[in-house]
Amino acid sequence: MKTNFVLSILLVMISAPLSWAQDLMPLPASITVNKDRLAIDESFKVAIRGHSDARLQAAVARFVKRLEGRTVYSFAPGLAVDDQLTTLIVHCEGPGLGKDVPVLNENESYRIDITDRQALLSAPTVVGAIRGLETVLQLLNSDRRGFFLPGVKIQDQPRFPWRGLLIDVARHFEPVEVLKRNLDAMAAVKLNVLHWHLTEDQGFRVESKKFPKLHQLGSDGNYYTQEQIKDVIAYARDRGIRVMPEFDIPGHATSWLVGHPELGSAPGPYTIERRPGIFEPALDPTREEVYKFLDVFLSEMAALFPDAYMHIGGDENEGKQWDRNPAIQAYMKGKGIKDNHALQAYFNTRLLKILQKNGKKMIGWDEILQPELPKDVAIHSWRGTAALAEAARKGYDGILSNGYYIDLIFPASQHYAADPLPADSTLTPEQAKHVLGGEATMWAEWVTHETIDSRIWPRTAAIAERLWSPRHVTDVNDMYRRLAVISLQLEELGLAHKKNQDMMLRRLVRTDDIGPLRTLVSVIEPVKEYRRYQQRPQTMLSPLTGVVDATLPDSEAARRFAFMVDAFLADAPRFQLYRSELGQMLADWQTAGAALEPLIDRSPALKEVKPLANNLSVLGETGMEALTYLKLGVPSTPEWRKASELKMDEASKPYGALEFVVIPSVRKLILATGK
Amino acid sequence: MKTNFVLSILLVMISAPLSWAQDLMPLPASITVNKDRLAIDESFKVAIRGHSDARLQAAVARFVKRLEGRTVYSFAPGLAVDDQLTTLIVHCEGPGLGKDVPVLNENESYRIDITDRQALLSAPTVVGAIRGLETVLQLLNSDRRGFFLPGVKIQDQPRFPWRGLLIDVARHFEPVEVLKRNLDAMAAVKLNVLHWHLTEDQGFRVESKKFPKLHQLGSDGNYYTQEQIKDVIAYARDRGIRVMPEFDIPGHATSWLVGHPELGSAPGPYTIERRPGIFEPALDPTREEVYKFLDVFLSEMAALFPDAYMHIGGDENEGKQWDRNPAIQAYMKGKGIKDNHALQAYFNTRLLKILQKNGKKMIGWDEILQPELPKDVAIHSWRGTAALAEAARKGYDGILSNGYYIDLIFPASQHYAADPLPADSTLTPEQAKHVLGGEATMWAEWVTHETIDSRIWPRTAAIAERLWSPRHVTDVNDMYRRLAVISLQLEELGLAHKKNQDMMLRRLVRTDDIGPLRTLVSVIEPVKEYRRYQQRPQTMLSPLTGVVDATLPDSEAARRFAFMVDAFLADAPRFQLYRSELGQMLADWQTAGAALEPLIDRSPALKEVKPLANNLSVLGETGMEALTYLKLGVPSTPEWRKASELKMDEASKPYGALEFVVIPSVRKLILATGK
Repeated sequence: MKTNFVLSILLVMISAPLSWAQDLMPLPASITVNKDRLAIDESFKVAIRGHSDARLQAAVARFVKRLEGRTVYSFAPGLAVDDQLTTLIVHCEGPGLGKDVPVLNENESYRIDITDRQALLSAPTVVGAIRGLETVLQLLNSDRRGFFLPGVKIQDQPRFPWRGLLIDVARHFEPVEVLKRNLDAMAAVKLNVLHWHLTEDQGFRVESKKFPKLHQLGSDGNYYTQEQIKDVIAYARDRGIRVMPEFDIPGHATSWLVGHPELGSAPGPYTIERRPGIFEPALDPTREEVYKFLDVFLSEMAALFPDAYMHIGGDENEGKQWDRNPAIQAYMKGKGIKDNHALQAYFNTRLLKILQKNGKKMIGWDEILQPELPKDVAIHSWRGTAALAEAARKGYDGILSNGYYIDLIFPASQHYAADPLPADSTLTPEQAKHVLGGEATMWAEWVTHETIDSRIWPRTAAIAERLWSPRHVTDVNDMYRRLAVISLQLEELGLAHKKNQDMMLRRLVRTDDIGPLRTLVSVIEPVKEYRRYQQRPQTMLSPLTGVVDATLPDSEAARRFAFMVDAFLADAPRFQLYRSELGQMLADWQTAGAALEPLIDRSPALKEVKPLANNLSVLGETGMEALTYLKLGVPSTPEWRKASELKMDEASKPYGALEFVVIPSVRKLILATGK
Repeated sequence: MKTNFVLSILLVMISAPLSWAQDLMPLPASITVNKDRLAIDESFKVAIRGHSDARLQAAVARFVKRLEGRTVYSFAPGLAVDDQLTTLIVHCEGPGLGKDVPVLNENESYRIDITDRQALLSAPTVVGAIRGLETVLQLLNSDRRGFFLPGVKIQDQPRFPWRGLLIDVARHFEPVEVLKRNLDAMAAVKLNVLHWHLTEDQGFRVESKKFPKLHQLGSDGNYYTQEQIKDVIAYARDRGIRVMPEFDIPGHATSWLVGHPELGSAPGPYTIERRPGIFEPALDPTREEVYKFLDVFLSEMAALFPDAYMHIGGDENEGKQWDRNPAIQAYMKGKGIKDNHALQAYFNTRLLKILQKNGKKMIGWDEILQPELPKDVAIHSWRGTAALAEAARKGYDGILSNGYYIDLIFPASQHYAADPLPADSTLTPEQAKHVLGGEATMWAEWVTHETIDSRIWPRTAAIAERLWSPRHVTDVNDMYRRLAVISLQLEELGLAHKKNQDMMLRRLVRTDDIGPLRTLVSVIEPVKEYRRYQQRPQTMLSPLTGVVDATLPDSEAARRFAFMVDAFLADAPRFQLYRSELGQMLADWQTAGAALEPLIDRSPALKEVKPLANNLSVLGETGMEALTYLKLGVPSTPEWRKASELKMDEASKPYGALEFVVIPSVRKLILATGK
């Protein structure tokens, strides 16, 4: 006899036993669990029923390859013919709206029904089926009896239709294979827009056949050929992902002006910008030749990029070149343009016409929202949900990136809390529809092909869940538990977010003996926001091979440490076990701190973290002393606590743009010894 | 006062102190060490003097980038103008013979002279300078005072002009980025030929515009476009590496016949071969249309690949299709062709004419050496030095691959011992000149983009040294010491030979908890020669994600264990320290073996190594018992030794195509307890 039981998502998350269903990320809209179990063995066969096309077949082939990779089974090649002998039936109703070019409002829903006998994935569109195949892969589990898919009924669709990742390839160029593996990772967590930030002060990364000096002189030779662009777009399309290009103007445009100084608001000559920051060079919005140029160039790009949207940037233009240019000032006076905002609005209006002529919708950063902006332009908000809501109230579509700046090294929990449409939103349902979703932004001042994966993943999976799953899915601990599972699965797609760390540590230490350094970097993080550059200035040409580059955001060890400290201090008898694990961690810190000294002496590139190595020992030692007080049940002296707190203050100082993230927990231990 | 002292290579290697100079690989022809020290700091500047061109400038730029990556210094961009302020002067006399296309007999020599004040690298050619730049990078060292280049005079040139790596991209396809990173690694150890094995029964990997059915039907879509081929050739040229294509005919040709069955010796139809092995399909050497086809195709390829040589394979054609084809038999009778060897010789003669017409030299495997073969054809010997010497005596140029089959998982020491021109060679100096060098062969039945690097590196660096350094450089222990250093340096080029292992173990265990599995794989190796397929049959479509794929050749841990056992047994009082390290290793084995059990229960893909996990515990336990006898100085009983030997016999059995490589050393410990 079989007992089926239904669990709401909330129940699944609150319930204590670790169930397979909890490993899904993003969590589906609705899920029903039963006790069935579909064995996955070498006889595995998949069939496509209903609509079938090359894109679906390729997706199924990739699915099978990954299933083989995980199980180390060789399945018989080809699709199943006999339904009776089929393990997984993929039933697709039709190609969907975005058959040739993925579209914003594609139906991405799917259903999964798994019984002892068979798994059925059904979807109204190919993209829906592609989303569902990722869920099936995430359902794969194993135990002593073998691999299996658990009995489950899932009905799923996204909360928001626009779920993107911006990759800035301008500050640092990324080879095509980096983009491709990140597209695979995006598909794995059901993201559907690659926002390709292609031009910046620091680089012009797309081949223009109309104006070849743009990429030839603006890129140091690091640009994508049009063939490569097409290849990336096709790769994304196969995964149901839109590719939206951004050409950031009129500011952020230095690299354009290297080859075409005549477009600038000051005479030039210009060189590619090597520093991070906001710079003056801007296109001249008062000259007709600039619009003629943009007309030709953007028409070329509109033909190259099939997506309905084109992002024109529009941010952070302070207009200083405009202020100093008498011709521009005269033009403004003559036309009655009252300030630089109005001048940029005028520029955008002209731009909009070019885009419309090419059948493109315009989107730009907050700054483009000026009174006279037509309602069919979308707003990309780096400012926040308030700005987004204001735009929605006025009738503008918009997406959120405030809260999703993954380059700023905040923990996933913080990104997870940012909701494009928060529970306390006062928008009417009609207004709320204008909030299309959001995008994680991988600004690339401090990433290379070696490190970019670790800055994007796994944290972006938490953002993907925020944008896909129901609003009430907010359990941070459960998110982190599932994030670790997904992080590991992403490696099968070639992502280097985990494996490159040891490699970078080996390069720094110059031997395989990286244990002590690994212990150090496990409890430190790069400093947040824009402090890295302030504390450790570099340029776009500098090597990103230092300890700060090898150190990951969102320390797992610190989270574990904090969790154990909180549990132990809340109920010591119940969490005795944690005391010994905490003691072990603290002892490791002390040992590692000491062991790092000779390594640092041999490796000058480690010198900048020498104070951190010392402080690691101090943290370990102080924490162990606190644990001893707590074990003995003897209160510490106020002098000891004062001295220990001073040590913590000292250890809180960043070095090499790195800081400890375990200090609040050690402080808790110190404080607790006073009771 | 400065004291200079001269050390011969041999002295450097025999002398006990670990000197920086010992980290070079391949070791240079001659080296003089002094006490100078050239500091490398942020003021580092490089100048090019004498001849300069784009290739040299690009090589210098790559050099600087790698130096920055290791030191984490940002050097001022651009080349030095003032010699007084220059750290490294690269003085190049001219472009060399292979300015546009690298050539066989390029002068690759260089000199390095490093003093307290400056480093001078001088070379007659750009390729010589490129080789020297790699040596300078290998010289980089560091200590408490900072990074530095040691004072040294080096005069270096290769022993053999042909130092190659064959990469088989037919059995398993490799993306362009895999080839590029391997070209970088080749350049790092001064290899100069990429032998690109492009066609096989299992795949046709090059785009033919003349006969598109070849790649369209013979490759599953996995082929290189002609643009990609040109890109790879240009990348190799920049590094002074020739790219020689191989089109293996008349056998090994199944994939050709899928699209063009009319070329075959049996009517077909044909499908791409999925199994490993030797297969019957062969081109029909008796039909004029076959030669017409080859004329057009090889002319197309001759234009695409600029290298002077074209490899026509010619191996392992057993002629079974020929035997069964009455028309071929009639043709042979009519022409007086007495057997299949003679028929293939006839085929080769026709082929040679096509190649000569296209200005190409022909090279093929041993089998092509038939009595009437013209003397300007070169022999590629998989048979061995005797065959090579025989060819040389007859006046044929030749290269060696016997001894360099890195796909067979033998240790580097074995490859290192294979010399194309061994000390006992009886060739005259004139004959010896026909021995051009050798090639490591990466046959690709059991490698993917995830694992190929670990099958090539670091072992191929030992082969590179054999082909570059003087014959008398043969110290195996020193080779292994330097190999570990070079292995680490190769990672900066993106090579994944080290970092992919943990990733693959994580995928198998499905958590980050890979410690016990890592301990197991550290002391096992894949079975050697062709036993993997016999013991664990798979096809070209099977997943290569099992434990055998994650396990590396040439176990470092086993080498360390053997070294310590030998030292300890030879002189226990002197090597007391090793007893505790041995005890620790053995204890780790026992613990890991036990800890693996629950992991294996959760992970069905590990089931095949369950007996190995048990045996790992047995090895640890037995070894510890032996150590205890030796510590106590009490002889063991014959019964214990007998029982222990039986355990070793049992543990010697391979499982999952994996076997322990520490058993001989454990046996030594057991045996020693009897004394």
